[in-house]
Amino acid sequence: MAVFYAVSTGPGDSELICLKAVRVLKSCEIIFYPESKKDTIALDSLKSLEKEIDLEHKTLVPCSFSMTLDKSKSDLEYEAIACQCVKFLQNGKSVAMLSIGDVSLYSTAGRTARIIKKSGFEVEFIAGVNSFSAAACSSALSLCEKDESLSVIPADAFFRNGKLEAELKSDGTKVLMKMGHHLKEIISLLGKLDLLQNATLVQKASLADEKIFYGEEILSMNERDFENAYLSVLILKT
Amino acid sequence: MAVFYAVSTGPGDSELICLKAVRVLKSCEIIFYPESKKDTIALDSLKSLEKEIDLEHKTLVPCSFSMTLDKSKSDLEYEAIACQCVKFLQNGKSVAMLSIGDVSLYSTAGRTARIIKKSGFEVEFIAGVNSFSAAACSSALSLCEKDESLSVIPADAFFRNGKLEAELKSDGTKVLMKMGHHLKEIISLLGKLDLLQNATLVQKASLADEKIFYGEEILSMNERDFENAYLSVLILKT
Repeated sequence: MAVFYAVSTGPGDSELICLKAVRVLKSCEIIFYPESKKDTIALDSLKSLEKEIDLEHKTLVPCSFSMTLDKSKSDLEYEAIACQCVKFLQNGKSVAMLSIGDVSLYSTAGRTARIIKKSGFEVEFIAGVNSFSAAACSSALSLCEKDESLSVIPADAFFRNGKLEAELKSDGTKVLMKMGHHLKEIISLLGKLDLLQNATLVQKASLADEKIFYGEEILSMNERDFENAYLSVLILKT
Repeated sequence: MAVFYAVSTGPGDSELICLKAVRVLKSCEIIFYPESKKDTIALDSLKSLEKEIDLEHKTLVPCSFSMTLDKSKSDLEYEAIACQCVKFLQNGKSVAMLSIGDVSLYSTAGRTARIIKKSGFEVEFIAGVNSFSAAACSSALSLCEKDESLSVIPADAFFRNGKLEAELKSDGTKVLMKMGHHLKEIISLLGKLDLLQNATLVQKASLADEKIFYGEEILSMNERDFENAYLSVLILKT
């Protein structure tokens, strides 16, 4: 029976994809990939694996999600894409949907999979390397040791609803993600709380044009760097 | 120049190792691996990759850490193992040290790397799939969507110092790890707080003998299951 695979492609470096993901992508004729102006990382990863995965005989289907905050609009978008996938599955063709990072974290493929599962098709999640592990490894940092905890925070949303400051003051390591809109304000807040010296900001972790800003260096980021806010991860150690 | 590589082997399934880790392991003659009575996962992963990595011509060095809570004793253990690695590096031989999961999370290889870095040798962290991503993927769960946060909690320690209950009551998804000693008490606490129906417990995520307990099924765990407490991850969704 045809299976829907939500496939993690890892943080960007195509070498940070797992053997299992490569095997699944080899086996699926239909591959959906996320497409946006800001981010072609998943497709780029796939293309740079062309030696391993023969793309000539695949059907590559772009899909875009508007990232709207309107839940009913967003639900409709996902339903439409899930419906496209289901058509292939009904014809007996397994479908892979790519997701950067790991599919269990903020992934469109994961959400699509759950809709497809309700249609009665088998879904499988292929785990991958998330962006904060890649960011930590690039900067040779441990996120946690021994009895330390880790909080992963969608920082734009927490900033908007006023919850970020309390989170930043709490114990344990913090990873701030999804800062596309408020990165400047978040950096100001870190400065105000005297926390910048404990922060490391990694942009495009694992990619060739990766950039790392340690501590106060974050204040030297230029406008171009802020354009990559969406692909930034900030690690705050206590 | 010789390099020390802290290499993530992923959660257990040898297919959940990254292409980069395989390349590095192929290139290193010296491979250190963690050895304990409870856990031979990293070495098992390596052995099942024998088709890809020729182990005949490698020097495999076991290393064990006592997991003592005595910091000075623990520091001495790490120093001794780092010293063994440095001897190889001084002879111009690159060293890989395996770590299950991802090296940025609770990893002995990460801590060893930081000691070796102080000796002036280059260290590199190779990112991998962590156990909670594997657990979420096995149970087809998303850890986070949209504006949700994630807390990764070393649960034995938090239970011991009385901080666990407050964490369990807080917002966002919780991942409880490192429950080797207090799993029974932690499950009782979840029951008391009426949270069991939102919990999923995954043992040996991604391995052939993986077990998943959804919600109240956790109460049916037997003594043998509790022996695998160390390799259990509990995901609590709100």
